[in-house]
Amino acid sequence: MSERKEFRTLVSLEDAKKALIPFYKRDIEEVPLNECYNRVLARNVYSRVDVPGFDRASMDGFAVKAKDTWGADEESPRPLRIKGIIHAGDKPDISVEPSTAVEIATGAVMPRGANAVVMVENTDTSGEDVNVRKPVSPGENVMHTGADIMMGELALRAGTRLTSREISVLAAVGLDRVAVYKKPRVGIISTGNELMMPGTILEPGQIYDVNAYAVGAGVIENGGEPVYLGIIRDVYEDFQKAVVEATKKYDIVVTSGSTSAGASDMMFSTVGSFGKVLVHGIKIKPGKPTIIGEANDRPFIGLPGYPSSAITIFNEVVAPMIRHMSGYPEKARREVTARMAVRVRSEGGREVLLPVGLINEKDALSAYPIEKGSGAVSSLLDADGYIEISEDTHVIDEGDKVSVKLFSEEITFPDLLMIGSHCLGIDIITEMMSEKGYTVRSINVGSMGGFRAIRKGIADAAGVHLLDESGVYNEPFLRSLNVEDAVLIKGYVREQGLILPKGNPSGIKGLEDLPGKQFINRTKGSGTRTLLDMELKKIAEGRGTTLQVLTESIPGYDVEAKTHNAVASAILMGKADAGLGIKTVAEQNGLDFIPLRDEEYDFVVKASSMNKPAVIAFMDILRSAEFKKRIAELGYKPQA
Amino acid sequence: MSERKEFRTLVSLEDAKKALIPFYKRDIEEVPLNECYNRVLARNVYSRVDVPGFDRASMDGFAVKAKDTWGADEESPRPLRIKGIIHAGDKPDISVEPSTAVEIATGAVMPRGANAVVMVENTDTSGEDVNVRKPVSPGENVMHTGADIMMGELALRAGTRLTSREISVLAAVGLDRVAVYKKPRVGIISTGNELMMPGTILEPGQIYDVNAYAVGAGVIENGGEPVYLGIIRDVYEDFQKAVVEATKKYDIVVTSGSTSAGASDMMFSTVGSFGKVLVHGIKIKPGKPTIIGEANDRPFIGLPGYPSSAITIFNEVVAPMIRHMSGYPEKARREVTARMAVRVRSEGGREVLLPVGLINEKDALSAYPIEKGSGAVSSLLDADGYIEISEDTHVIDEGDKVSVKLFSEEITFPDLLMIGSHCLGIDIITEMMSEKGYTVRSINVGSMGGFRAIRKGIADAAGVHLLDESGVYNEPFLRSLNVEDAVLIKGYVREQGLILPKGNPSGIKGLEDLPGKQFINRTKGSGTRTLLDMELKKIAEGRGTTLQVLTESIPGYDVEAKTHNAVASAILMGKADAGLGIKTVAEQNGLDFIPLRDEEYDFVVKASSMNKPAVIAFMDILRSAEFKKRIAELGYKPQA
Repeated sequence: MSERKEFRTLVSLEDAKKALIPFYKRDIEEVPLNECYNRVLARNVYSRVDVPGFDRASMDGFAVKAKDTWGADEESPRPLRIKGIIHAGDKPDISVEPSTAVEIATGAVMPRGANAVVMVENTDTSGEDVNVRKPVSPGENVMHTGADIMMGELALRAGTRLTSREISVLAAVGLDRVAVYKKPRVGIISTGNELMMPGTILEPGQIYDVNAYAVGAGVIENGGEPVYLGIIRDVYEDFQKAVVEATKKYDIVVTSGSTSAGASDMMFSTVGSFGKVLVHGIKIKPGKPTIIGEANDRPFIGLPGYPSSAITIFNEVVAPMIRHMSGYPEKARREVTARMAVRVRSEGGREVLLPVGLINEKDALSAYPIEKGSGAVSSLLDADGYIEISEDTHVIDEGDKVSVKLFSEEITFPDLLMIGSHCLGIDIITEMMSEKGYTVRSINVGSMGGFRAIRKGIADAAGVHLLDESGVYNEPFLRSLNVEDAVLIKGYVREQGLILPKGNPSGIKGLEDLPGKQFINRTKGSGTRTLLDMELKKIAEGRGTTLQVLTESIPGYDVEAKTHNAVASAILMGKADAGLGIKTVAEQNGLDFIPLRDEEYDFVVKASSMNKPAVIAFMDILRSAEFKKRIAELGYKPQA
Repeated sequence: MSERKEFRTLVSLEDAKKALIPFYKRDIEEVPLNECYNRVLARNVYSRVDVPGFDRASMDGFAVKAKDTWGADEESPRPLRIKGIIHAGDKPDISVEPSTAVEIATGAVMPRGANAVVMVENTDTSGEDVNVRKPVSPGENVMHTGADIMMGELALRAGTRLTSREISVLAAVGLDRVAVYKKPRVGIISTGNELMMPGTILEPGQIYDVNAYAVGAGVIENGGEPVYLGIIRDVYEDFQKAVVEATKKYDIVVTSGSTSAGASDMMFSTVGSFGKVLVHGIKIKPGKPTIIGEANDRPFIGLPGYPSSAITIFNEVVAPMIRHMSGYPEKARREVTARMAVRVRSEGGREVLLPVGLINEKDALSAYPIEKGSGAVSSLLDADGYIEISEDTHVIDEGDKVSVKLFSEEITFPDLLMIGSHCLGIDIITEMMSEKGYTVRSINVGSMGGFRAIRKGIADAAGVHLLDESGVYNEPFLRSLNVEDAVLIKGYVREQGLILPKGNPSGIKGLEDLPGKQFINRTKGSGTRTLLDMELKKIAEGRGTTLQVLTESIPGYDVEAKTHNAVASAILMGKADAGLGIKTVAEQNGLDFIPLRDEEYDFVVKASSMNKPAVIAFMDILRSAEFKKRIAELGYKPQA
């Protein structure tokens, strides 16, 4: 242990960014016009042609000398002799003399001698003449040579991002190749003995490589081109070779992982051996074990191993460099202002980037912290972005305004946030809400977590099914858990029981048979687990022992499934002999079921959310005949 | 003329969109994980694995039985015998017995018998023992099997757009191929005898094809894949063949152009011959001559020829279909709320999509109409989006709130809007403003247009150099043009004169020699043109004639260049024998110059803009030593 190194010279996030500034540079390449979408123009474009390149009719009608039409009106139309016709694309060999006209199409070349066009709607023809019923002034319905863009004019400025309208201008001035900033090529390496490529089969101890794909998507989003260089084990020579080769070929090299103390030592000394370490770690949470170095005059960034940390540091440190190189505007991500839904504490002493979820409130966004462990990939889905808490900030109060940096431009925030117990009925609600144009985010944390989320004011609604010792569902917990300013809305009745493999090979007859059988449990605080514990406690008491002793005799009692379906899957896969869950899920999966009791699945709704359009829509759905029909199909019963 | 057809059965924009709904469908394809960025998930993803797949240490430290640490503190650490070490990726063959510990790295498999990890910071080692200085509870610093994502759990829902965070989850559950909605392939055809590909040389009457590239960029932006099928002439057989072939190969076929009365007849009858015409035109401005049809069960949309009309109808009618097919959210474009800067009238009787520019005001956006002819491509650059004016709306008042549909997601609005005369000094101001972080949009409409833009309240500032009959610059026009609530800020002095080809081959000595020479003029209302007309008027009077007669003897007097550079270019290219402009531009282009008089180039600033940060920065720049130095380099003189 003694040779392990702590990160001794942590720098601020700001200084970490500054360490990379020497590598901010831009290369230029020419691309075909039809491939320049979303690229950034690298040079000013001066038009080499006039647009249009000739005096052009801008209406269908007749090219005339304006003077010849003066005085014309509906009563006394002016007849002009038609001398011919000019179509768009024709090179006209015809001219307009006094008292004559030439039929002309939109976009066609104006004939010599004509200085205006009478719209076809203001004429009629009789024999060889056209009768003009409305006068025109010189230049009317004519676009002069260069009136749109003149030869020599600055048509587009360097630095412009090319969207449909800029590309239109490039086409109009005749460019078929466009000078744009080169997308930096970013070599992406994942390091770690535990990593495997998605699509392979894992052995114990292995996990799939996530960071390569997360970083690759981030590279694209910021204007770069990712190159996936695969997984490198924690072997000095392999790592050195991979990084040295990569810095020769790519503009930027990003690795991730191997930042646990032992492996990161290896990285430090390796980078030191072939290049220069610029930053030894950042005074920030998460992301402390970040390495910045250089080799072959190219920057090298070693990101932390946890995906959420890796993405955060990538966004803060690497993305601005990629954006500069590709000419994108400096501001990396959309920021939105929101109000904190709860009080947040920080230890202080280092900057904290706190992941938050966002929810649409009546006229503002509300932010709530995402508190899963930093190792959880799924927490990325619940978080929409993060807030920066400075070193000296210790508390952000409920209601304080915060600026949230979004993880992605494409994020849309839910209209309804449900945090609580999982139920198939919530999937139906989500679907029916979506048909009404509302988006729902539902986070499964069990009934107890649901009550807490309402108490804290985070969630709009929570699905709950908690049984009180007195045998009453849900309602007593509003008081016992101090959930104020909330309304309990009765939902429906589900049948809970034991889910067993088809044919019940272990011959389980009830909860009393669980000891010695491989069990799969549900999340702590979930209604299902609470029910299980109440029933097991009765059995334990009957046997003159305690709940703890009884549960220690049930292997797998500690394994927590977050959803009913996950329980069914574990049993289908042979990973467990039994689990507790609802009848519907057992039936859907063709599994055996021993009923234990009916339970009441209800919704706790935050009082201040009751007027939100999304909550009104939610309540309408709960009351609707369609919802009742669809939950009946699931085998649920309406509330008595 | 008699056989020409007017569009008789115009439908509303809403009905035009509805005509395409039968073609809204979605196909699914599988793509590799590293190519799914920004695609939309087509099927629910249920995890086939537990994440993590084993009980995992979430910190560097020692795996222990929690009980063995209870009671430990700084004074009385608990010694545990170290039984070995487990690295990330190891398959451990080791177990923790009472009073023992196993060293463990973040991400490594927990050994049998251990139920918690003591962080390395809370330990020290002595010989074969580790001394634990802080107790842990069961499960502390351990992530249990499936705690992140459990086998069978719904990891991602169909319909989710895949950004970095969703891709992280797909990788974590081990997917290497992802079912996404297929990007619809859109065949793009341009029609018209006048069209040529960019990169070719134009002959008289020809213009470059703009719409193919504008539409192609729009297809990408909305999630589709453009296929460029080239230019088809207005020939029945060619058009029929191209469209029939395209509808066999592509999901959607978009043509543009050939919508002038004669050509569109051809299109109608052609589409009728091989398919079905669904819509004969839309009751909207711009975009009336739009055709919607079907052939081979595929939709066919014929857009108008003018680029701004084509893009508008594409956005309204075609983009929603492409978005549906690729699974993108229905809302095609960002909408922003703005206040109209000026009163706008509409004829009524049909819906109008009015292009507007947007400008950042103190706490809101302000929208001003873009009034260039619909044939101008450059007008696309000045417009940021458009507002929808319904059939029955005749007036939108100044200050009314309007909803602006943006042309592109990537648009950013300028902080300072300058509308007026063009000057090289404005390019310097733009550059210096950009260094201060402010964006400037400058629209060149001449001095008179600048005064008008300030009077209407559209622009923040206008560069002007208008000479009064009394010989005073700019100031008298505030009164004579009724420009109220504005401030005149003195700028600098420029030298105006005749720009001539090098060596002055025509031997021009002054304005009196212009008759009979090919001239290039500036925009009506520009200060340069006003100065020219004042001087020419004196000459005409001296010769006993009128200005009009004199100018009729100067070929090219009607040709309007929008910038000084454009004048110089025309002379360099041999297109003109003389033009009026500033000395600086003549010198920069190596052209001859005959001075006429010094003129005062000043800025009119809208009074209500004076407190805008961007205007304050602009005023600072005008006063700065750097600006004075840089305009001196251009040959301008500071104001006396």
